[in-house]
Amino acid sequence: MQNFTSFTDFSEAQSLINLALKYKKDPFLDKHLGRGKRIGLIFLNPSLRTRISTQLAASNLGMEPIVLNMDKDGWALEMKEGAIMNKNTVEHIKDAAAVLGSYFDILAIRAFPSLTDKSQDVDEYIFTQFLKFTGKPIISLESATRHPLQSLADMVTIKENAQEKRPKVVLTWAPHIKAIPHAVANSFCEWALGCDYDLTVTHPEGYELDEQFTAGATITHDQDEALKDADFVYVKNWSAFNDYGKILHAGEDWILDEQKLANSPNAKVMHCLPVRRNLELSDEILDGKRSLVQEQANNRIYAAQAVISEILNTQAGHPNKKV
Amino acid sequence: MQNFTSFTDFSEAQSLINLALKYKKDPFLDKHLGRGKRIGLIFLNPSLRTRISTQLAASNLGMEPIVLNMDKDGWALEMKEGAIMNKNTVEHIKDAAAVLGSYFDILAIRAFPSLTDKSQDVDEYIFTQFLKFTGKPIISLESATRHPLQSLADMVTIKENAQEKRPKVVLTWAPHIKAIPHAVANSFCEWALGCDYDLTVTHPEGYELDEQFTAGATITHDQDEALKDADFVYVKNWSAFNDYGKILHAGEDWILDEQKLANSPNAKVMHCLPVRRNLELSDEILDGKRSLVQEQANNRIYAAQAVISEILNTQAGHPNKKV
Amino acid sequence: MQNFTSFTDFSEAQSLINLALKYKKDPFLDKHLGRGKRIGLIFLNPSLRTRISTQLAASNLGMEPIVLNMDKDGWALEMKEGAIMNKNTVEHIKDAAAVLGSYFDILAIRAFPSLTDKSQDVDEYIFTQFLKFTGKPIISLESATRHPLQSLADMVTIKENAQEKRPKVVLTWAPHIKAIPHAVANSFCEWALGCDYDLTVTHPEGYELDEQFTAGATITHDQDEALKDADFVYVKNWSAFNDYGKILHAGEDWILDEQKLANSPNAKVMHCLPVRRNLELSDEILDGKRSLVQEQANNRIYAAQAVISEILNTQAGHPNKKV
Repeated sequence: MQNFTSFTDFSEAQSLINLALKYKKDPFLDKHLGRGKRIGLIFLNPSLRTRISTQLAASNLGMEPIVLNMDKDGWALEMKEGAIMNKNTVEHIKDAAAVLGSYFDILAIRAFPSLTDKSQDVDEYIFTQFLKFTGKPIISLESATRHPLQSLADMVTIKENAQEKRPKVVLTWAPHIKAIPHAVANSFCEWALGCDYDLTVTHPEGYELDEQFTAGATITHDQDEALKDADFVYVKNWSAFNDYGKILHAGEDWILDEQKLANSPNAKVMHCLPVRRNLELSDEILDGKRSLVQEQANNRIYAAQAVISEILNTQAGHPNKKV
Repeated sequence: MQNFTSFTDFSEAQSLINLALKYKKDPFLDKHLGRGKRIGLIFLNPSLRTRISTQLAASNLGMEPIVLNMDKDGWALEMKEGAIMNKNTVEHIKDAAAVLGSYFDILAIRAFPSLTDKSQDVDEYIFTQFLKFTGKPIISLESATRHPLQSLADMVTIKENAQEKRPKVVLTWAPHIKAIPHAVANSFCEWALGCDYDLTVTHPEGYELDEQFTAGATITHDQDEALKDADFVYVKNWSAFNDYGKILHAGEDWILDEQKLANSPNAKVMHCLPVRRNLELSDEILDGKRSLVQEQANNRIYAAQAVISEILNTQAGHPNKKV
Repeated sequence: MQNFTSFTDFSEAQSLINLALKYKKDPFLDKHLGRGKRIGLIFLNPSLRTRISTQLAASNLGMEPIVLNMDKDGWALEMKEGAIMNKNTVEHIKDAAAVLGSYFDILAIRAFPSLTDKSQDVDEYIFTQFLKFTGKPIISLESATRHPLQSLADMVTIKENAQEKRPKVVLTWAPHIKAIPHAVANSFCEWALGCDYDLTVTHPEGYELDEQFTAGATITHDQDEALKDADFVYVKNWSAFNDYGKILHAGEDWILDEQKLANSPNAKVMHCLPVRRNLELSDEILDGKRSLVQEQANNRIYAAQAVISEILNTQAGHPNKKV
């Protein structure tokens, strides 16, 4: 594996899931693999779980993580090719990316979308620049359109908890008060479909996701119908994609609570956190037996560890065999 | 020791003081004790000494410290049980606490009081939530009502410098321009009394501390009387407790200077730092031979190291024997 | 070497350059030298390259780096001797310096000039205080008047790329929109002259640097004349020194582009980064073969590593022999 910025194929996904489960049993199994190597964790946006879980993952492999809060500790970045930099931006992304590439063995980057410039977001402009100018492997800590480490942790969680070989997985839109990126929802669809799960996506009219991620899923505006007999229910807000970055309406009746799961006795409930309690999801679910949200957060460590391990092994010339 | 959030009893305090002194002589004595373990240092408020000394303490024990500036790097926390989170808070404390508990072996937390909601502060609401939801040992890096690592370092400093078995210890209120928490003052009383020192507390009328911390001390508004023949003088500002969080008056004549110590030739002067020079304490004292403030700051490392060591040993099933 | 805050002499500079080149070939050559030691990286201003390269340098030597963003994580510092601290500052620099000195084996500090109080800046007030009160070796991560780690990395880069024994080195002023410190320009002159290079400094009228740094250089307002047959061209903005901290005019025609190097076929171009593209330096140069800016940034690691190594060896009683 050269970079980790999106789902690639079924067998690589299975290989990563299995490796993550192996590390979960024995976190220090490969504690010398990353010796003398450094991973730079570059945050252009805030983070709690992603920051800590990736630090722990690197450290479990004997690799030194260095965190850079680019937005606070560093300089404002210029993104535009050919810009005359006589305004607020202090450093061009291509210079910063090259320097960071020369300082680290692996770069892990978080860069949220603007939610205003659709084509720049969809084209993953910032990640494209980093991929072009660093010359080192890149791990996404959430980009404009994807959050693959979250999705890998989600797949690990589903694998641990699935009763069926091909469970019914439902992604259900939830209300929120802010315009939220599509990355978690997109990635979840990409990975759930790629892992060959039976995926249903449900949301109010107008909240259609980018079709490149949902093609192959059942899509419906009828939440009750979608939730019926679900094995896993993933709750997540996102802003409109077509009317880009907009909040179309409050949608408060889309909250997930126990009443809505009356016909889904076995449904486990997932959320990537942070969750807005009693707006997206009810206290009764989050504090009850259906909730997998803490398992998901814990699995973030091992998902990141599997990814870093694969990249280190690829750098060393002996990638893990695929399952 | 399961958690370290307050004074417990005389023998545990003596045990910690002695262990701290042992580590001061040989910081790397137990350098493998924390191998493969992580302590999360969670700051909801700024810090210099506490942050660095605790990092060094953990590192001396071979334990990996990871700092999280929750207020800046993470998300705004919701504190209220059952809240409908449709406002500014992004994550509920119980979800964050549980995630952090799953990421770390020990959590160390700093959470200042509001100084506006007295009952929430007195009930240590934030610490109570962490204790309830993390499932891991908690170390206080200063809570709403206590700063036990500071007090332990203070007791170590008194032990190192005491000429008498039962020295006269004076806590004297000092002027300040901001409303300052009671934590350092409360804890100092709790520990000095618990360690069986002869404690006098002096302050202007209206600045009475919470009686649960001062019961057993001599309390007076006469600063001169209090300072007479003192062995140790601890200088500290705090806001009013009864008229909660208020500054009642400037009180500039309560500054501690050499003139006030004319009748206390042996008095050593203590302060937890940061100190406002020439407002709380005069330059002549801080730069003179009476001052122990740098020793206190240095002892913060070994106080934290003793506490982490005790918790690690308890986790491992072999707590240090009490003295 | 006790401290590293400025150029000292030719032989020490050569010794550091050679040691840096040795570490560049084998970064982990002395990986146990700093074992059990800590370096505090104290930032009173933002940083990207300096922060990360110094962390990596320390870590290559087995030394633990701890970063403190004093401006954000800590407290506002009082700088004035004898101040009555009843305003915004929370801690006096002499108390903070002493505490930090007791926590670390080496302190590395970044403190930009005010650009308003000339005499305080020229006297290096902040560094003087740290040197006076820490009792530990100090490394400059850029002070009010100098940036010696940058200059050492620059000298390493020149040494690697020089065709001649005594190359023609040109420092050329570049336009900018903000008032920029003199530290990089001053230090570059100090080191280039101290290393016995043929130095020319060119700038618009009014931008004369402090003569203590430029004495011995050819100084001209004719940029074309200065650039002719140059081997190395260092591009850098600075604000006025005589009319202290002022921007005298836009000076946009002072940008360095290919056209200006028509008569300097062998000229390599240097800049300390961050660089404002198409304002200070054209894209064609930065993205072309003349540019050494990425090499300079990479050499920051080994420059810092050489300096830390010398200080650790001096502390241990066996300083490296000079070349």
